[in-house]
Amino acid sequence: MEKFNDVTVVKKANIYFDGKVTSRTILFENGDKITLGIMMPGNYEFGTEEKEIMEILAGNLDVKLPNNDGWISILAGDSFEVPSNSKFQLVVKEITDYCCSYIKK
Amino acid sequence: MEKFNDVTVVKKANIYFDGKVTSRTILFENGDKITLGIMMPGNYEFGTEEKEIMEILAGNLDVKLPNNDGWISILAGDSFEVPSNSKFQLVVKEITDYCCSYIKK
Repeated sequence: MEKFNDVTVVKKANIYFDGKVTSRTILFENGDKITLGIMMPGNYEFGTEEKEIMEILAGNLDVKLPNNDGWISILAGDSFEVPSNSKFQLVVKEITDYCCSYIKK
Repeated sequence: MEKFNDVTVVKKANIYFDGKVTSRTILFENGDKITLGIMMPGNYEFGTEEKEIMEILAGNLDVKLPNNDGWISILAGDSFEVPSNSKFQLVVKEITDYCCSYIKK
């Protein structure tokens, strides 16, 4: 069972799209940040500030990344990167458990 | 912004009722455990092993506790206790953000 030790957890949830996407913010001692979240089935568009690495722990979705015309199929165990300051679309086909890492420059 | 410091977070989500209830497990150095979770609107029945204290961070629900005939209205900021080894019912009226503490004997 994979765990993150010696971290700080923000108590209140991050809630988006009327609760169809929710997450918890986890802060590391070195200043890194991740969110652990759940996406219910649906179509979403997100915007990034920092570069993000999305790791899919469980679920099934298609992603359309910036500067890409095609959709990429993503399953549990897969990850994808989204550049900073850009938008990306998701079609979530099954409830999806994810870990999002925010990458500082 | 309330936070929990120096904790361990289990990476994978706990997922119940087809994703309508999800949570993350947080472990403390002294052995205590909580879960931080989200409940979507709906009717649920849960069972406890240990005694539980449910703190509602946001949301609106009614709870029927064991050995109680009436429903109790619960709002953000409210908490309720459920004895160990018992069942309780919830009618969740709005997406609800909660913190559940597991109380060892």
